[in-house]
Amino acid sequence: MTTDGKRSGRRPGRPDTRQDILNAARVAFAADGYDRTSIRRIATDAGVDPALIHHYFATKDRLFLAAIEAPFIPSELISQVAEGDFATFGRRLVATFVQIWDGEIGERAQAFLRSVIAHPDRRTLVNDFVLTQILREALGHAAPDLDHAETRGSLVASQLLGLALTRNMFQLPPLQALTPEQIVRIYAPTIQRYLTAEAAELGLTLSPE
Amino acid sequence: MTTDGKRSGRRPGRPDTRQDILNAARVAFAADGYDRTSIRRIATDAGVDPALIHHYFATKDRLFLAAIEAPFIPSELISQVAEGDFATFGRRLVATFVQIWDGEIGERAQAFLRSVIAHPDRRTLVNDFVLTQILREALGHAAPDLDHAETRGSLVASQLLGLALTRNMFQLPPLQALTPEQIVRIYAPTIQRYLTAEAAELGLTLSPE
Repeated sequence: MTTDGKRSGRRPGRPDTRQDILNAARVAFAADGYDRTSIRRIATDAGVDPALIHHYFATKDRLFLAAIEAPFIPSELISQVAEGDFATFGRRLVATFVQIWDGEIGERAQAFLRSVIAHPDRRTLVNDFVLTQILREALGHAAPDLDHAETRGSLVASQLLGLALTRNMFQLPPLQALTPEQIVRIYAPTIQRYLTAEAAELGLTLSPE
Repeated sequence: MTTDGKRSGRRPGRPDTRQDILNAARVAFAADGYDRTSIRRIATDAGVDPALIHHYFATKDRLFLAAIEAPFIPSELISQVAEGDFATFGRRLVATFVQIWDGEIGERAQAFLRSVIAHPDRRTLVNDFVLTQILREALGHAAPDLDHAETRGSLVASQLLGLALTRNMFQLPPLQALTPEQIVRIYAPTIQRYLTAEAAELGLTLSPE
């Protein structure tokens, strides 16, 4: 506490200011969700100037990802999924997903999922991460006019997170034995159907959404 | 240790004996899995007569379910899924699954899943619960000659547990808004494909299993 020059000036490098912002951001995002939380409000809660938040985190996206300790920056991976024919979106998404969970980021992704499951109060955070940061972004690029996009995106999440849960976390032996190529063969049609099947076939027109 | 009269008699009613058996069972099942753990070995570990285990738990199945604090007794639900045309097995399985997770048992099922996720050393237990107790049993009744049964069962688990994770635990709003009828419309074809699609279509013939 004495080595970092606390209160000796307003240098942006003080680690506790950055931490104060992250703490305030985490509380605000968890309470109100990503969309309804403003940088200005987090600045007020943390007792800092909004410009300082921009200095540290550049964008609201990046602040959010830092606050929830996201295992990776979605936008860096989204382009490789979103670009190309939407008819093969499922293949690219599953391939990228397996690459993340089987790769170096996999451990961090597991820790992230485990911490959210252990703390139900962080639910809003992960929902925002999955729905807003990943799916809305990826689908917005690939198929901006998609009907029932949030529902379809959530169906996709239900299969992919279930795959991570059973294959990477529970390590079910029959799933561990599958190669990435097999996983794409198995799951891409599921994902593709959730995204591109007629709303009526999925029963989405049965009740108002 | 002195108040419970340990070793002062062999009365079957002593609660610590039952607990000793459960503790020994949990350790043994976690270490070696359901199939390779015998009642005799658990009796030795717990320092009791095997007959006492049968007295308390009747079968190895029941002992296992008690040891892992299973949220429900699978055999009680399996018959309603297994009976009937295998071509509509997916519909019955999804309907029963939603009924469990949305009903009174749902809270216990969540607690079970949460505890396994928090304790990676209990992985073998949940894998045995899902694979041995539920899927092997249900599929064994409905389609005893199914090829790649363990793999297909694991694919089913990856979707259904993912649905429970995202809809019941994370409470993703678009999934919570779906009715049980819609959920069956959406997920039954996925489950049915994992169970009945040709092995080649799923890529299961690409490498030795």
